[in-house]
Amino acid sequence: MQAINVQSTKQEEFIDITSQVREMIREQKWQKGTLLLFCMHTTAGITINESADPSVVRDILVFLARTVPRQGDYKHLEGNSDAHIKSSLIGCSEQVIVDQGELVLGTWQGIFFAEFDGPRSRKVMVKWIGD
Amino acid sequence: MQAINVQSTKQEEFIDITSQVREMIREQKWQKGTLLLFCMHTTAGITINESADPSVVRDILVFLARTVPRQGDYKHLEGNSDAHIKSSLIGCSEQVIVDQGELVLGTWQGIFFAEFDGPRSRKVMVKWIGD
Amino acid sequence: MQAINVQSTKQEEFIDITSQVREMIREQKWQKGTLLLFCMHTTAGITINESADPSVVRDILVFLARTVPRQGDYKHLEGNSDAHIKSSLIGCSEQVIVDQGELVLGTWQGIFFAEFDGPRSRKVMVKWIGD
Repeated sequence: MQAINVQSTKQEEFIDITSQVREMIREQKWQKGTLLLFCMHTTAGITINESADPSVVRDILVFLARTVPRQGDYKHLEGNSDAHIKSSLIGCSEQVIVDQGELVLGTWQGIFFAEFDGPRSRKVMVKWIGD
Repeated sequence: MQAINVQSTKQEEFIDITSQVREMIREQKWQKGTLLLFCMHTTAGITINESADPSVVRDILVFLARTVPRQGDYKHLEGNSDAHIKSSLIGCSEQVIVDQGELVLGTWQGIFFAEFDGPRSRKVMVKWIGD
Repeated sequence: MQAINVQSTKQEEFIDITSQVREMIREQKWQKGTLLLFCMHTTAGITINESADPSVVRDILVFLARTVPRQGDYKHLEGNSDAHIKSSLIGCSEQVIVDQGELVLGTWQGIFFAEFDGPRSRKVMVKWIGD
């Protein structure tokens, strides 16, 4: 079990961690199997979407901010209920395939750490499930 | 393949099943691998979020009820289209890591069965994928 | 690693791929394990929901179209930001259990390819993780 550390610098942002995942695959010499990427936090998540144009993740964040307002009919006293809701909508994990030592992703796909209550130091566990 | 049985008592509620998952890990003597928790129903789901303050899951449920109204432009005749929609938004499964016989979760994380059309008797399949 | 090819014929539709997954399980003689179904695209997804009444997936699509409008405060220039947003809400993968050579699903569950920006030729990777 490995971990990727992520340092977010804004309250809300998508951080592309694809290159860190690729680097870990090379370092660990993983060849064929799957990787589970699991976010250890309840106000963040993991998602896969387009990494070529940064406008895409900007549009996702703006949509989420509009749909899940920061202030609302919330009882949780920490004032970050919107971040918890977004975490459950986006999901806290993703699983990706590795084949011949390479991450199997579509042309436009990147893996993002989704920060909804930063800036914070975050941790993503990486679990290799080999053939 | 094991199963966790869940009895919901309300139309909508999040039921914390973390302790049942931990108990199963102990009983089965699972040491190192991952667990797939798969909900066998189309009007419920599985999510991971904060278990310390029950206001968090309350806030998620209230948000979902507001965003996905019980009555709407629906064609499905059973009157529970909102529950089906919530199920696809939240997702019907989660995968968690087990290391040294222990569930690997963040400090605030709990595993919840998300009931959207109860009260009902529900079943979550548990599939061990060991190293 | 196998693949399922999907040809969508509308801009938005849910395509039931359950029978194709079952056929692959038979052909590959997979007996006991899990299958990861991973969509290689950023404007589509995979979800599990009711397959008996087609109104259910119609209701999910109508809800998503209303909640994530085609036109909005978007910066991505390709005009399909709504499809990217829906992809991250629904998720790009699902994992299912196989036992005794059979897909383990609830009575009403089917596996759907969720097209949000068709018509297009699409690919779902299928990764077997056997016991």
